[in-house]
Amino acid sequence: MDALLKKFLKHDRLALSRLVSVVENRSDQLAKIMDAIHDRVRNTSVLGITGPPGAGKSTLVNQLIRQIRQKKQTVGVIAIDPSSPFSGGAVLGDRIRMQDHSGDEGVFIRSLGSRGAHGGLSRATRDIVRLFDAFGMDWVIVETVGVGQTEFDIMEIASTTVVVLTPESGDTIQTMKAGLLEVADLFAVNKADREGADKIVLELKNMVHMNLSSEAEAWEVAVLQTQAANGIGVIELFQKIEAHEQSIRQSGSLKKRVHKIRGIELQEILLETLSKDLEKKFREDPRYQKIKQQVEIGELSAYAGAAKLQELP
Amino acid sequence: MDALLKKFLKHDRLALSRLVSVVENRSDQLAKIMDAIHDRVRNTSVLGITGPPGAGKSTLVNQLIRQIRQKKQTVGVIAIDPSSPFSGGAVLGDRIRMQDHSGDEGVFIRSLGSRGAHGGLSRATRDIVRLFDAFGMDWVIVETVGVGQTEFDIMEIASTTVVVLTPESGDTIQTMKAGLLEVADLFAVNKADREGADKIVLELKNMVHMNLSSEAEAWEVAVLQTQAANGIGVIELFQKIEAHEQSIRQSGSLKKRVHKIRGIELQEILLETLSKDLEKKFREDPRYQKIKQQVEIGELSAYAGAAKLQELP
Repeated sequence: MDALLKKFLKHDRLALSRLVSVVENRSDQLAKIMDAIHDRVRNTSVLGITGPPGAGKSTLVNQLIRQIRQKKQTVGVIAIDPSSPFSGGAVLGDRIRMQDHSGDEGVFIRSLGSRGAHGGLSRATRDIVRLFDAFGMDWVIVETVGVGQTEFDIMEIASTTVVVLTPESGDTIQTMKAGLLEVADLFAVNKADREGADKIVLELKNMVHMNLSSEAEAWEVAVLQTQAANGIGVIELFQKIEAHEQSIRQSGSLKKRVHKIRGIELQEILLETLSKDLEKKFREDPRYQKIKQQVEIGELSAYAGAAKLQELP
Repeated sequence: MDALLKKFLKHDRLALSRLVSVVENRSDQLAKIMDAIHDRVRNTSVLGITGPPGAGKSTLVNQLIRQIRQKKQTVGVIAIDPSSPFSGGAVLGDRIRMQDHSGDEGVFIRSLGSRGAHGGLSRATRDIVRLFDAFGMDWVIVETVGVGQTEFDIMEIASTTVVVLTPESGDTIQTMKAGLLEVADLFAVNKADREGADKIVLELKNMVHMNLSSEAEAWEVAVLQTQAANGIGVIELFQKIEAHEQSIRQSGSLKKRVHKIRGIELQEILLETLSKDLEKKFREDPRYQKIKQQVEIGELSAYAGAAKLQELP
């Protein structure tokens, strides 16, 4: 592990790749790795790209990578695979599309499955973002399906989040209203050559406007039209992304957010340890097993069972 | 509290109402109450109604209440209010619509806000379902916006879940695919007189069919068309709901599920206690506060901070 870390710090891509795997698998070495790279983490720009399947997220990511590379900057991409077995095909296609950049030393792409435990995927992603950051990437892009999913919270990871929608997303906007507003720093209405694009843009702008009046914010969420497949609107989108990154750095809101998330993370790590200890007790301690069984068959209420277990020496 | 519980057990509606409030507020008396009613809980039918805003869920609930009352059965309704400030108006309208039944002794309706902590709403709802159950209600209906939201998991509560969609829900179906299949025992395509209903029905049936082949299940998810506002299709829907309830009782899958959830609940209660203890330490113990601060400003990594705190005596 020490040799691997040394190579990583010397900018070895293979070492990065192997460390990402170690972190993804939540190995026992995790704390050691994160600790070793800690001083190198600079809180680089983390761009979250989210939206429904079929919105064209991967195509847009592909175009954004191109923008970044044209500026001679580097980028690490984390593509979160949804747990659904149905979307397997589409995701695979997306990944292949991203291989446009596979020969490029300034681009590092990694897919991440959501097979992990509740909240585990967020933690793993956050740690991999840090690996990319410490490796010296100028940008990290995290692409994920959906908004407000149980399994993954993009807000805890990205410094700028773009919600990608299409002219057909009216229903999603209705369902997700508050959720969308909470996560989006920018809206991209993609496939904007299709019918209904103007209507969706207007709907989003109204939503943003209503929200603005209630909370005075330095940044006004922008709504842009893109046609990622043809590269239309991508330059404007990237300019807005850069503007948002600058805004949160100047206002100090990024720093505040980073501090807050670190504090939450500390509590999460401690709670995870307690949770694992508890699971171990249910696995190994016959007293725990007996009371759990009594609760399961209804002999004891869950509260009564918990009280009994808390009284144990 | 003892007097209140006594009245509750004697079928006093006012006592029920007050106990629901106590449980909703997660008071210290919670364990005592749930323990006192434990023997009266019969695992009655719990019907979950979920779907996007504007799908007509409340109108459908209203119609289902009518069906239940025509059979001289009783029903408790829990309407989960989404946390969004935007949907306030709509929700209020919905509640007023439900007041159709406000003079009816066999119907008890309660709204529940989602202001609580992560997962807290699920726990509170589960406990209120038990109150209704112990009170003797034949049915409990839980109405909630959205599917797969972070804040509320209908699957942990309902024995039969109906996902209500409309002909305009194509985008939601694409986004939620696996999530929808996971929760739905029945699909109701409401407002089925609108254009596109047949297409959505076909799409859902195909989805259900693809899923069936991978998992052999006793129950085949049905896709029904309804027009709740005109009462069309409601009798058929209620028949399917009854059929599902019978199916999970006969197959033993309800019992298995109830046992499993009780076991999970026991662990949740214990973990919640540990989590509260931890929060208390961060609030009161200066050693915890100092290390949290060091982590926040980046002096220590979160893992290093956690390790230090775990070493404390």
